[in-house]
Amino acid sequence: MALKFAERMEHIKASEIRELLKLTARPEIISFAGGLPAPELFPVEEMKVISVKVLEQMGQEALQYSTTEGYQPLRKKIAERMKKVGITADPEHVLITSGSQQGLDFSGKVFLNPGDIVFCESPSYLGALNAFKAYQCDFVEIPTDDHGMDMEALEKAFQDHPNGRMIYVIPDFQNPSGRTWSLERRKKLIELANRFNLPIIEDNPYGELRFEGEFLPAIKSLDTEDRVIFLGTFSKTFCPGLRIGWVYASDEVLNKFITVKQGADLQTNSMSQRELNLYLETYDLDTHVERIRQVYHRRRDLMLSTMEQEFPKSVKCTYPEGGLFTWCVLPEHMNARDLMVKALERNVAFVPGGSFFPNGGHENTMRMNYSNMPEDKIVEGIRRLGDVLRKELGE
Amino acid sequence: MALKFAERMEHIKASEIRELLKLTARPEIISFAGGLPAPELFPVEEMKVISVKVLEQMGQEALQYSTTEGYQPLRKKIAERMKKVGITADPEHVLITSGSQQGLDFSGKVFLNPGDIVFCESPSYLGALNAFKAYQCDFVEIPTDDHGMDMEALEKAFQDHPNGRMIYVIPDFQNPSGRTWSLERRKKLIELANRFNLPIIEDNPYGELRFEGEFLPAIKSLDTEDRVIFLGTFSKTFCPGLRIGWVYASDEVLNKFITVKQGADLQTNSMSQRELNLYLETYDLDTHVERIRQVYHRRRDLMLSTMEQEFPKSVKCTYPEGGLFTWCVLPEHMNARDLMVKALERNVAFVPGGSFFPNGGHENTMRMNYSNMPEDKIVEGIRRLGDVLRKELGE
Repeated sequence: MALKFAERMEHIKASEIRELLKLTARPEIISFAGGLPAPELFPVEEMKVISVKVLEQMGQEALQYSTTEGYQPLRKKIAERMKKVGITADPEHVLITSGSQQGLDFSGKVFLNPGDIVFCESPSYLGALNAFKAYQCDFVEIPTDDHGMDMEALEKAFQDHPNGRMIYVIPDFQNPSGRTWSLERRKKLIELANRFNLPIIEDNPYGELRFEGEFLPAIKSLDTEDRVIFLGTFSKTFCPGLRIGWVYASDEVLNKFITVKQGADLQTNSMSQRELNLYLETYDLDTHVERIRQVYHRRRDLMLSTMEQEFPKSVKCTYPEGGLFTWCVLPEHMNARDLMVKALERNVAFVPGGSFFPNGGHENTMRMNYSNMPEDKIVEGIRRLGDVLRKELGE
Repeated sequence: MALKFAERMEHIKASEIRELLKLTARPEIISFAGGLPAPELFPVEEMKVISVKVLEQMGQEALQYSTTEGYQPLRKKIAERMKKVGITADPEHVLITSGSQQGLDFSGKVFLNPGDIVFCESPSYLGALNAFKAYQCDFVEIPTDDHGMDMEALEKAFQDHPNGRMIYVIPDFQNPSGRTWSLERRKKLIELANRFNLPIIEDNPYGELRFEGEFLPAIKSLDTEDRVIFLGTFSKTFCPGLRIGWVYASDEVLNKFITVKQGADLQTNSMSQRELNLYLETYDLDTHVERIRQVYHRRRDLMLSTMEQEFPKSVKCTYPEGGLFTWCVLPEHMNARDLMVKALERNVAFVPGGSFFPNGGHENTMRMNYSNMPEDKIVEGIRRLGDVLRKELGE
């Protein structure tokens, strides 16, 4: 007889992107699909020094169980570092998590009952949508433009859905669109969330990776009623393999997250937390982040300028001021999943954009990553994709 | 206005043990409270060699995102290693998790709907109970004796509770009781689970730490219908700080766990997985485990023999053939929480046993850990506790 699974298992399925990335792991593939940082920038040499030092200075402690909240010196450094996005933070309100993905899962666990509504950007980050779906929520997608969510649409959605429970946003260099919210929209979001008494999950993995344009403060820094839960990570500024992210929230909310963390995995890796902490004491992460910014800036420029030359004019792409992605809208009759099959024949990959819309549709979109491929491959890959697009459009 | 949390948050609270362990972190405390391995046995020197080699051989890969299932060479080694508990394993059925605690959380997530019944040993592991509670289940405790669960009581419980959904057991050197199931009970459990079509979560963190007595095969090795989910960990045989555990289950079930893992934290730490894998290639973990066994064996002997001398005869403790804990039952009128207050005045700590019973009661019990304290402190701590006990009993 077959085993019975929980009802929530009917709501979640393996990420399409993940299955896709498996296909694109062949070395001959030029991949704009994943959201991977450039591995050649990882501080491998520094980590050699650091890992030995941590083991010398506190080896037993680094290999032992430690507190659920996280390594205290690292919590302090994270709190200090949040000044970069405009937040004056208390280390006691930092919970260290296994990447910010864990913060997303916990957000669903702490706030969502089955049937609750999550308000999200349209499109939004697939990994977050999948994490929330496990709590059997539904999504109301709010239209976005180059300045963020449409605030009138959001207000109307709040009014129309009394079972709305949570707002999820990525205000800086959004995944997948590459767009950034204006200050005005950020302030308006706080105002509306206050009025409708909703928590805001602010996911900020890319905030430090601005190439140009004006600094914009995190929504958390504008929070007047302790209702923003800020999720940060070192995956894009340091490296993702160590799985270190954090949740920043008020006392009451953070305590809920800590309780959830305890049941979920007791604590984040003791060794990696101490390594990152010693790295931050020994080296200058800002210098490292500046190098990442420069490299990604050049790659973005190159991707956009090559697209300009190679893509049909009817394909419209966003202009990200930072982060890892641009987002392209194809003519309405096109389907990016079909296009992907043809691109793969030319050994080029991207992510069809339909997956980023929890309620479906928008199959004429695609997410393009520029952080992971070297410059020559960006040019070559965009050329090939341009070929495929022109053929499809009969140009 | 206060934020509204999900209903599940009313079911879970911070672990009492965790709060207790904070109190007992002072260096002058002789603690039998935590379930911590002996840190002086951690392979700190070997890890220095290993961490540098991993970074030299595959630094970029070790710091990058990797697959949700886990590092393939490590999955293979885990599959081979499961022969030690009698399981012939397929590496494709291994999912690497952030400690086995994550496997417990995922078990709840995959199988439990609100109001479902989990059948568990009485007493059972607090961390598992807390993980499951987040899925709003109820518990039916099955009495246990020195040979495992009472199988007649289990069968009756299955009949009485048609909303039973899952069986959770720790058959080897159980936490908290230190007891081990007989082969007969293991076989009977499979038979009953087959008859009532229930999954079995077999939690096996201590199975390799047998000091004496006959080897007993894991329940998973007796599984005839792919209904056992086996949870393993390197926390007690290697070190807990790296947070590496695993789930071993059939295709269909493992796929559910993989999907859940993806939403929960994408993957386990890339670097630590590669470190452990290279450690297993470079050193002999069996030799290391044998050393742990010898040390814990001596500590158990010393704790039990000192208890024999120092504890009043009315206090009954179990005789664990392996693992980390013994379990003591005090005269019925005593309350171990009150005793704990008095023990702490003498700088000795243990865990009052009541927390291990999900439905309450049994306040006259205590869990005693012998793995974490050196021999002189075990003797001194048990003497002090003996003093306190004798005073309380007016002896």
